[in-house]
Amino acid sequence: MSAAAHEPVQVEFYFDFLSPYAYIGSVSIERLAKELNFEVVWRPLLLGITVVKVMGLKGVSEIPLKREYVRHDVERFARYLDIPFNRAPTETMKSLSAMRAFVWLDRKDPDKARRFARSLFEAQWARARDLSGIDAVVALASSVDEDPEEMRSGILDPDIKLLLTKQVDAAIERGVFGAPTFAVGGELFWGADRLPMVKRWLETGGW
Amino acid sequence: MSAAAHEPVQVEFYFDFLSPYAYIGSVSIERLAKELNFEVVWRPLLLGITVVKVMGLKGVSEIPLKREYVRHDVERFARYLDIPFNRAPTETMKSLSAMRAFVWLDRKDPDKARRFARSLFEAQWARARDLSGIDAVVALASSVDEDPEEMRSGILDPDIKLLLTKQVDAAIERGVFGAPTFAVGGELFWGADRLPMVKRWLETGGW
Repeated sequence: MSAAAHEPVQVEFYFDFLSPYAYIGSVSIERLAKELNFEVVWRPLLLGITVVKVMGLKGVSEIPLKREYVRHDVERFARYLDIPFNRAPTETMKSLSAMRAFVWLDRKDPDKARRFARSLFEAQWARARDLSGIDAVVALASSVDEDPEEMRSGILDPDIKLLLTKQVDAAIERGVFGAPTFAVGGELFWGADRLPMVKRWLETGGW
Repeated sequence: MSAAAHEPVQVEFYFDFLSPYAYIGSVSIERLAKELNFEVVWRPLLLGITVVKVMGLKGVSEIPLKREYVRHDVERFARYLDIPFNRAPTETMKSLSAMRAFVWLDRKDPDKARRFARSLFEAQWARARDLSGIDAVVALASSVDEDPEEMRSGILDPDIKLLLTKQVDAAIERGVFGAPTFAVGGELFWGADRLPMVKRWLETGGW
């Protein structure tokens, strides 16, 4: 049921750039990591695979009632946690290029990939940029001292596409389906609103 | 954006007996009501209408990955909040009889209906009873000094069926789709994990 408390730990953070809740979760988990001194391992997820293909559901923007609730709630949630939020006018983001850029960079430099992921999340959800296209993604390459054209080749590389697919399959294999999901050892916590529970789990070793 | 703080308030609590999260939410909101001294108005919802018919989704027990996550999570969540939890072996509960019993009793005695609802939730989710059938529901009538056969007639009364439908329609009209949902004035908070946010909203008047 529980790991021993007070051991050095890491938290795995499953994300998809298209989710504003994953953005809120990314800022929250990094804050908590500073407070409790643990490492955050960023793990890519594709909600188009898990939610639509595996679970047989629909994207939020296609769901009556929930669509309107979420639109209001994410802004209220960001204010609640004092996280900058300013979304692009486009209803939904297509995250595949951005996710592949992350995987490409993560393979050669995980630290830099994490910094780049934070930049992408921040541009998309706090600075109202639409990063759906490959051009918009590679335009941010220089923010982490990467060459835009090299990044573009990485995004289009079949090996990178396959690597992302494999990582998503591995996430599904362990039961991950939504973003953000936080994994503490074998325990999965789904939702940015579960951070207080993640914190308690880390502090106590579980219950 | 916000109501004035520190005014006497009430919180509307939307529930469906079939949801273990609504059970957790019912205990949590009543605890918070004692702490902050507000009234809880219980409002019936039918997830079979909102989730399946209006939103076009599926019940949790039919969703791969989420089904397994939720099964584990509700028990962990109940322990986290120190709420007794012991589910019936049946995978899902059919709540229509129980919901109609609530509406029938609520029409004549809202206080008693609230007590009865707490009994039903507790029997279903803490004492592993399956309250799917009308017989199981009316068997609990005596716990609130009601006659079982009178309650049975109420459950089968077309006026009560219509009244429940109208109440669910009114919930949908204001944007409610899930259970538990907490309404503070015009602000909706969906999910038992949003109680800390509801608390802050009540304490500050919103943000």
